[in-house]
Amino acid sequence: MSFPNSVTIDSINPKVLQCEYAVRGAIVNQAQKLQEEIKENPGSHPFDEILYCNIGNPQSLGQQPITFFREVLALCDHPVILDKSETQGLFSADSIERAWQILDQMPGRATGAYSHSQGVKCLRDAVAAGIAARDGFPADPNDIFLTDGASPAVHMMMQLLISSEKDGVLCPIPQYPLYSASIALHGGSLVPYYLDEATGWGLEVSELKKQLEDAKSKGITVRSLVVINPGNPTGQVLAEENQRAIVEFCKKENLVLLADEVYQENVYVEDKSFHSFKKVARSMGYGEKDISLVSFQSVSKGYHGECGKRGGYMEVTGFSPEVREQIYKVASVNLCSNISGQILASLVMNPPKVGDESFESYSAEKNGILSSLARRAKALEDAFNNLEGVTCNKAEGAMYLFPRIHLSQKAIKAAETAKTAPDAFYAKRLLEATGIVVVPGSGFGQVPGTWHIRCTILPQEEKIPAIITRLTDFHQAFMAEFRD
Amino acid sequence: MSFPNSVTIDSINPKVLQCEYAVRGAIVNQAQKLQEEIKENPGSHPFDEILYCNIGNPQSLGQQPITFFREVLALCDHPVILDKSETQGLFSADSIERAWQILDQMPGRATGAYSHSQGVKCLRDAVAAGIAARDGFPADPNDIFLTDGASPAVHMMMQLLISSEKDGVLCPIPQYPLYSASIALHGGSLVPYYLDEATGWGLEVSELKKQLEDAKSKGITVRSLVVINPGNPTGQVLAEENQRAIVEFCKKENLVLLADEVYQENVYVEDKSFHSFKKVARSMGYGEKDISLVSFQSVSKGYHGECGKRGGYMEVTGFSPEVREQIYKVASVNLCSNISGQILASLVMNPPKVGDESFESYSAEKNGILSSLARRAKALEDAFNNLEGVTCNKAEGAMYLFPRIHLSQKAIKAAETAKTAPDAFYAKRLLEATGIVVVPGSGFGQVPGTWHIRCTILPQEEKIPAIITRLTDFHQAFMAEFRD
Repeated sequence: MSFPNSVTIDSINPKVLQCEYAVRGAIVNQAQKLQEEIKENPGSHPFDEILYCNIGNPQSLGQQPITFFREVLALCDHPVILDKSETQGLFSADSIERAWQILDQMPGRATGAYSHSQGVKCLRDAVAAGIAARDGFPADPNDIFLTDGASPAVHMMMQLLISSEKDGVLCPIPQYPLYSASIALHGGSLVPYYLDEATGWGLEVSELKKQLEDAKSKGITVRSLVVINPGNPTGQVLAEENQRAIVEFCKKENLVLLADEVYQENVYVEDKSFHSFKKVARSMGYGEKDISLVSFQSVSKGYHGECGKRGGYMEVTGFSPEVREQIYKVASVNLCSNISGQILASLVMNPPKVGDESFESYSAEKNGILSSLARRAKALEDAFNNLEGVTCNKAEGAMYLFPRIHLSQKAIKAAETAKTAPDAFYAKRLLEATGIVVVPGSGFGQVPGTWHIRCTILPQEEKIPAIITRLTDFHQAFMAEFRD
Repeated sequence: MSFPNSVTIDSINPKVLQCEYAVRGAIVNQAQKLQEEIKENPGSHPFDEILYCNIGNPQSLGQQPITFFREVLALCDHPVILDKSETQGLFSADSIERAWQILDQMPGRATGAYSHSQGVKCLRDAVAAGIAARDGFPADPNDIFLTDGASPAVHMMMQLLISSEKDGVLCPIPQYPLYSASIALHGGSLVPYYLDEATGWGLEVSELKKQLEDAKSKGITVRSLVVINPGNPTGQVLAEENQRAIVEFCKKENLVLLADEVYQENVYVEDKSFHSFKKVARSMGYGEKDISLVSFQSVSKGYHGECGKRGGYMEVTGFSPEVREQIYKVASVNLCSNISGQILASLVMNPPKVGDESFESYSAEKNGILSSLARRAKALEDAFNNLEGVTCNKAEGAMYLFPRIHLSQKAIKAAETAKTAPDAFYAKRLLEATGIVVVPGSGFGQVPGTWHIRCTILPQEEKIPAIITRLTDFHQAFMAEFRD
C-alpha cells in the first residue's frame, strides 16, 4: 500500500529521527510479539510468560499499590460518597479526612478543573512541606512545578536551556536515555562524562572538568550538568562529600545542576543514605544567589511505583524572576498536569504520620516493599556475579543492575554478522531463550568495547529463584556456544 | 537579590521567548492578584468574586462531573473495594461492571503501571469502537494514541512536521493559541488564513489557496493545515460541503490535515451538526493512501469538561509505517499518558447505553449540561449584540463567543498611552470594573485594526443575568468615558 507523500521519513524533523529511546526499543517490540505468540499458541516458546525487566514499572510485575494513597485518590475522584455511611466501612478514617482536607482547599472542590499551571496551590504547599521536613531547609511552594511524571519536567528544562547544537549538557555515561533523547529532540549536544565502573560507578569531578574543557575546545557552551542520584542504570548512591564537590564544580563553572532524584526513597544499603542536592548546597551555605538547581521527583518510583498515575514535580531554585516567568509560560502552554497525579505527589511527600489510623498498615506496606527490593537486588547481583565472565556492581539504590558481560570474540563476530551490537545480540538471545526482557547497555552508553545489560530488580520475590535459574542456564549455554 | 548568571533571559532558547500563550497571560495574572486582594480584604473591589471566562474550564465554574464517569474512575483507582458489599450501596451496578471489564483486560489489572506508549490496548479498542459508531466507518485501535489531553498530541505532530522556519503550518486566524505557541516552540512558520467574520467566521478555500501561494513565494514549504471544528475562539461549526472542499484542498496540495475536533459534542444549533473530517474524507472515497489526517480529541471539553483529568487521543491515519514508527518513538520518550485520563477517554467514547442502569441519569446529566450551555451561549450572544459598537457572531458550537468591539479613537489612544493593545486595554478595564476575566483578541489573532475579546459561555446559568448586567454597565461607562 502506498501512502500520501505529505510526510516521509526524509521530510520529517531530523531531530526526531536522531532521537533514540532504548528502554522501549527493538527488544521490547520483539517481546510484545513473543507475548502474542504465547497467547495464541501456548507452548510455542520455552517459557510461558514474558518478564519485563526492561523498565522500572513495579506494578506491571505485580507490586500492589499503597492502600492509603489509592483510598484518597478514589475519594477525590468521586467526592459525593465522602459523607455516606457505607464509605466509612470501605475507607480508612484518615483517608476520608485527607480527601476532605484536599478538596476543601481546592477552588470549588473541582478535581476536574484545570489547575494553576504549576499545580494546585495546596498540593504544592504539601510537597514543599515534605521537602522541608526531608532536608531541614525551607522549601517554597512557588518553586514547585507539579508535572505528569518527571519526563515532561526534564523536557521543559532542556527546551529552556538548549538553543542549538552549541549548547551542551553534561550527562553521565551510562545514563537514563530520557536525557539523550530530550537533548536530541531539542537539538543540543550531549557532553558525556563517564562513571567509573571499577569504583562502583564513581562520579569523579576531575572527569567532569576534563569533559567540560574538551567540550569548550569544540566550541560548545556547557549550560548544565545532569546527575542521577541514586543512579539509573548504575544503582550508585552518591556520598555526601562527592555531592559537595559536584555543587562546588557547578557553582564555579556556572552550570545549572539538574538533579534527577526520582529514586530518593530507593536506597538498600546501610552505609549510604540519600541527600538531596538542595540540602547539600544549603548546608554548604549556598543559597538562591549561588547556584541554579532543579530537582526532579516522580510518583513512579520509590516504594509506591505509581507509574501509570504520571505524577511528579520539579523544584526550581536559583533562577531570576524573568527566567522563572519563561518556565511558567512553557508550563502554561500545556495548561496543567493531571490532578490525580498532583494529589499523589502531595501524598508521597506527606504520607500518613504516627498516630494516623493508616500509619501502621502504610508502614508495613512500605517497609515490606523496600526490604523485599533490597533482598531482590542482592540476590540478582549475586547471581550475575556468579556467571562466567560477568561482573556486577552492587545496586545501592534505584531499581536496576547494570552487569558487564565480557563477551568472547566469537560472540562479537556473531553479533556483527547479525548486524546488531554485541550486547543487543546477547539481550535478544536471552529474550528468545527465557522470556526475560533486558535493555542492552548501548541504550545507556558505556565505555567503548565494554558490554552491559540493564535488568530491573522488580520481578516479584517468589519468582527470583526461577529467574536466576533460567538466566544461569541461558548464560552457560551462550558461553558454551560462543567460546573462542 | 542577584541570581547566578548560568541562565539569563538573553541566554535561554529564543524560541521560548517568542512563544506566547494569552489564555494564561497578563490578564489572568492580574485576576489572580485581584482574587488574593479580595480574599485578604473583602470589599476592596466593586465585586466579590473573580469570574474566569478566559478559559474553557467548566468545572472551575461549578459544573458537576458526570456521575458514571467518576464512579468508574474511583473504582479503577481502588479496585479492592469492587467485591465488597458496601460498594453496591455506593456505586451503580453498571459502573462496577464497567470497572471490572476494564481491569480484567488490563495486564495485571495494574492501573498503576506504565502502559503501552499509545495507551492500554483495551481502552484504545473502546475509543476506536466509539469512533466507528460515530462515523459509520471503521477505526483501528492501532491508529489511536491516548494522550494527556489534546495539547501534547498537537506538540507531537508539530515536532514531527517542523524542522525549521522553512516549514509552514496553515492556521486559522483567529486561532486557539496552542497552535501559535507550539509552532513557535518548534521553530516553524505560522501561515495564517483568515476566517471571514462577516459570514459567521466562514472558512474559504480561496483564502487557503491565496495564503499557501503567498507562503510558497516566501520560500516556505507548507506541511499541514490546522482546522478547528467546532471553532475556537469562533464557535463556528463547519458545513459538510465546506469540509469536503477542505479535504480536496489538502489532498491536492499534499498537506497533512490536523483536525482539532475537541468540541465535537458541543453543538448548540439545530441546523448544524458535527462531522469528523475522517468521516467526510471516507465518504468521499478517500482512504489511507489519499490523505494524511490526524484528529485530536480531549476529555476536557464536550458535556463532561474533565479538564483536570488530562485525557485525550489523536487518531493518526494515512502515514507510512516508517513515519508511524517515528511518532511512536516520540510518544515512548514520555512513556505513556496517565491511566485515569486513558480510562476516561474510553468512557467518553463509549458512554452508558440504553438499558444500562446509569443510562437515564447519565442522559439527564448530559442533556442538562448541553441544553444549559446552548441557552447560555444565546443569552450572552444577545447581550453582546445589545451593546453599543459590539457585533457578535453566534456560538454554533464550542464554548466561546468572540465579539468584535468597535473602539473609539479616544480609547485606542488611551491604550497607546498605557502601552497596551486596545483590546487588552478593554479587557483590563472590564476585569477591574467587574471581576470578569476575558482574553483579548490579539491573543488569538484578528484582522489588523479590528478588536475582539474571547469570553466563555461557562459561568453557571443562574449567574448569567448578573454577569450581563455587570457587563452592560461596564460597557456603557467605558463607551461614555472614551466617546470621540
